[in-house]
Amino acid sequence: MSDKKQKKQSKLKARLARGFPDRSPADIRATDLMMGKIRQVYERFGFEPVETPMVEYTDALGKFLPDQDRPNEGVFSFQDDDEQWLSLRYDLTAPLARHVAENFNDIQLPYRTYRAGWVFRNEKPGPGRFRQFMQFDADIVGAPGVQADAEMCMMMADTMEALGIPRGQYVIRVNNRKVLDGVMEAIGITESAQKLTVLRSLDKLDKFAWEEVARLLGEGRWDGGKEGEGDYTPGANLTSSQIDNLRRFRDFAARVAETYFPDAARFLGKEAEVADRQYDEVRKGFSFLGESASLQDGIEELIAIHRMAAAAGYVKIGTEVEERVKLDPSVIRGLEYYTGPVFEAELLFDVTNEKGQKVQFGSVGGGGRYDGLVSRFMGQPVPATGFSIGVSRLMTALKNLGKLGASEISGPILITIMDRDRIGDYAKMAQELRTALNPLDENGQPLGPTIPVELFQGNPKDFPKQLRYADRRGSPIAIIQGGNEKEAGQIIVKDLIEGKRIAQTITDNSEWREAKAGEHLVAEAELVVTVQRILLEQASDAAIGGDA
Amino acid sequence: MSDKKQKKQSKLKARLARGFPDRSPADIRATDLMMGKIRQVYERFGFEPVETPMVEYTDALGKFLPDQDRPNEGVFSFQDDDEQWLSLRYDLTAPLARHVAENFNDIQLPYRTYRAGWVFRNEKPGPGRFRQFMQFDADIVGAPGVQADAEMCMMMADTMEALGIPRGQYVIRVNNRKVLDGVMEAIGITESAQKLTVLRSLDKLDKFAWEEVARLLGEGRWDGGKEGEGDYTPGANLTSSQIDNLRRFRDFAARVAETYFPDAARFLGKEAEVADRQYDEVRKGFSFLGESASLQDGIEELIAIHRMAAAAGYVKIGTEVEERVKLDPSVIRGLEYYTGPVFEAELLFDVTNEKGQKVQFGSVGGGGRYDGLVSRFMGQPVPATGFSIGVSRLMTALKNLGKLGASEISGPILITIMDRDRIGDYAKMAQELRTALNPLDENGQPLGPTIPVELFQGNPKDFPKQLRYADRRGSPIAIIQGGNEKEAGQIIVKDLIEGKRIAQTITDNSEWREAKAGEHLVAEAELVVTVQRILLEQASDAAIGGDA
Repeated sequence: MSDKKQKKQSKLKARLARGFPDRSPADIRATDLMMGKIRQVYERFGFEPVETPMVEYTDALGKFLPDQDRPNEGVFSFQDDDEQWLSLRYDLTAPLARHVAENFNDIQLPYRTYRAGWVFRNEKPGPGRFRQFMQFDADIVGAPGVQADAEMCMMMADTMEALGIPRGQYVIRVNNRKVLDGVMEAIGITESAQKLTVLRSLDKLDKFAWEEVARLLGEGRWDGGKEGEGDYTPGANLTSSQIDNLRRFRDFAARVAETYFPDAARFLGKEAEVADRQYDEVRKGFSFLGESASLQDGIEELIAIHRMAAAAGYVKIGTEVEERVKLDPSVIRGLEYYTGPVFEAELLFDVTNEKGQKVQFGSVGGGGRYDGLVSRFMGQPVPATGFSIGVSRLMTALKNLGKLGASEISGPILITIMDRDRIGDYAKMAQELRTALNPLDENGQPLGPTIPVELFQGNPKDFPKQLRYADRRGSPIAIIQGGNEKEAGQIIVKDLIEGKRIAQTITDNSEWREAKAGEHLVAEAELVVTVQRILLEQASDAAIGGDA
Repeated sequence: MSDKKQKKQSKLKARLARGFPDRSPADIRATDLMMGKIRQVYERFGFEPVETPMVEYTDALGKFLPDQDRPNEGVFSFQDDDEQWLSLRYDLTAPLARHVAENFNDIQLPYRTYRAGWVFRNEKPGPGRFRQFMQFDADIVGAPGVQADAEMCMMMADTMEALGIPRGQYVIRVNNRKVLDGVMEAIGITESAQKLTVLRSLDKLDKFAWEEVARLLGEGRWDGGKEGEGDYTPGANLTSSQIDNLRRFRDFAARVAETYFPDAARFLGKEAEVADRQYDEVRKGFSFLGESASLQDGIEELIAIHRMAAAAGYVKIGTEVEERVKLDPSVIRGLEYYTGPVFEAELLFDVTNEKGQKVQFGSVGGGGRYDGLVSRFMGQPVPATGFSIGVSRLMTALKNLGKLGASEISGPILITIMDRDRIGDYAKMAQELRTALNPLDENGQPLGPTIPVELFQGNPKDFPKQLRYADRRGSPIAIIQGGNEKEAGQIIVKDLIEGKRIAQTITDNSEWREAKAGEHLVAEAELVVTVQRILLEQASDAAIGGDA
């Protein structure tokens, strides 16, 4: 007894590390399908793949994580045998900057590139919050003009459509770090740490009411609602007039984002004038902040992006307003390396959150201009702009919309084992079927969906277990050849779908008839054609809804 | 000056971490193509994808690296904030064992599964030896019989053919750990550490002559050739009679591997008898080692695998002997977790090694039965067998054979920027072309290869630079619209391939004519059809070899 107990205790526990999930076949296949569609869009825009390793020198990655103040916080790091620090990459932008700087002489600028891959965050895992997750990035390096930012936004809009997200259910929101910087400059916030705290406080507006954000902007905020209750978050220590100006900015930003082209139907035929008037409204709306070069610059860049998107058909003013790319001065991206336009792909349909409330699905990705990230390695400026998609979040969105690609692979045709000594015969049948059912073109590419063929590999003694296995694997057909059939040169091809249907209609519970349901006894030479015929019948039954 | 110097010194150095490479577009695309073909074969055999994370608890991975005696040597490890040790996975088998044990009640056995992914080794990097590399594994868990091992071998043979490796240029060699264990048992080697040392010494036979291996089996070996010279590797301390027996075993193994079906043409029509006689020869060849249950078992399992492969058509005896699956008692796989059949996919064509010698390309993957790996988590035995392909090594092989898939994506059609204020017009042209040239079917899948369309994103002031960019990107066509063309409602479509051809034939160096070479001035409405026509012409020129 105590021996047994000891053995049990010393048994190793099979467990995933916290925050590091496995992935199921359905998830892998759906992700691959989704990534393939995104890749097609990127390649149509002239982007090329590149991949960087999972592990980089810590100093080459830098510390550009949002909400991380200390170096290496949030990053998995370990020391190499030459004492240099290595880290698992935490995003795909910092490694790209390293890649470009390292290969600067060989890279043809402007360099359009995309990358998909795993990134790692040393954070506390939680529901839906993993320490390994996938990003899919696209970047243009060496592109100084805002037209590159505009193109990123348009490409993201095309990506959403390629994934089947209906027009009107998504929007690419654009803001500009220069606008935000200009606003802060105008109200006297100049110190960079304070600026970052202000940005991150404003970024909480999707979670908190203004009063709560105001506390974060002022003296700080107690989680419990009043002083001394719950956790305390230090504030940005702004004055009340500064906070008031930020509130005016916030209100105006919300107006721009919500009603950029109000009542557009009235202006049919005068779209250009409407646009110009609206652009002027935006300029005027910021005038309460006085004159700031950064602010003016930022606004003009925003307008240029919107104009370009409109010219290319991503914004339509008419009887129906359709803004696939939208100005939204309230968009904050928390990363400190952004230097110009920032953007966010947002999905507009409602989902129910964990509190049972209906909320908009929200962001599935974002990006912006990061002119300083490559140049920190270089003696020269290297402008760049990019976009990053959070793959699993986008997958969740597509699942909600019913747009997740389904697995196209059917259950396997199962070759059962009746006679252990003739395993070679069964293997031969399997091979014959595999080849015949999966024809290839002259380039070795399959001409249709894969039809798997399996040899049963469990213990063959228990025959009903083999059929139960077929059932659980969703097999359409089982192949059976016992000694009698072998002697007669015959094979039983069992239509498992038909068999199940018949079994359900049998009322006299005759085990014998149930067992034979859907079975076809054919000559060995007719194995392939019989299987092909049954698969065709099953497919046409399924098409007309005859498949129970 | 000193300021400048200081700045230069403080500049961060962009550099890859040792042993962690970037991957180029060509490499990524060729790998994806190759993996897709392998995946198709696996799915035809009824295997399903699964993925495990890069990071696992160190104890769950265990220490199963070949040639690593101390725990964690060879593995990148770091501590979590709860003090538990985490490691980057070093292969895909140990994590699969964890996955199966953790989800044992939900997994339908026998479980056929495949996985591709990066693995990490904390080793000294060298030429062609990386610390991050890709493996592609297939496994059957819950399959007790050697028919499962046989099926793995046959699937590997099919994989080689799907990749375009000609029959006769590859072979799947099979041995059995029970044979090796039986041999050692017979000659009195019973201690498991000593057994592993012996196995690893014998595994050096592809690099060393027998005399060198004999030293490793005996008192140890000095790198420099005699005592005290170079590095010393401790030996297995076998007696000379033990070493002699191993040599006899080695000689017989080589004979089996080389001439298993000698002079087969003489036996036409009597293949079964030939096979049986040869199987008997194998049994007899081992008889000098006396009786060992493990040895007998191992031999019978080997024969069963070969019989099954022959029945399924992977071994043919006739006018031409064709052994896609071959018995080879000399195959050693260094991993200590193997418990039964082991196999290796070997490529037989010659390559030149770094010393300028012609050598066979050799192994591109291998595997075997590991019945203990899952069960160390469980209270019950869980038999399993699997195969792992070294992706980059297989890529190298395909490159040598000229079978590496080429990139199918052409250079982008470049929309040049003549007038910065009309960037919206250019973006619209790009979008029009992108849509028209990349039609999709009703499922959103592309109907042909991708034709990328790019808007120039560098500094547009220098127009010749835009054309040079197009040239270096391999663009087939550039689109040009200056103020004059715009006014006339026209666009210049420049055929860059034709233009280059004409430019080469011009002898009077007329810059004007060269600049206009291949240019088509068309109405704006004809942009798409003109581009389509030129692409068709270019394709047919290329097909008849007219493309200079």
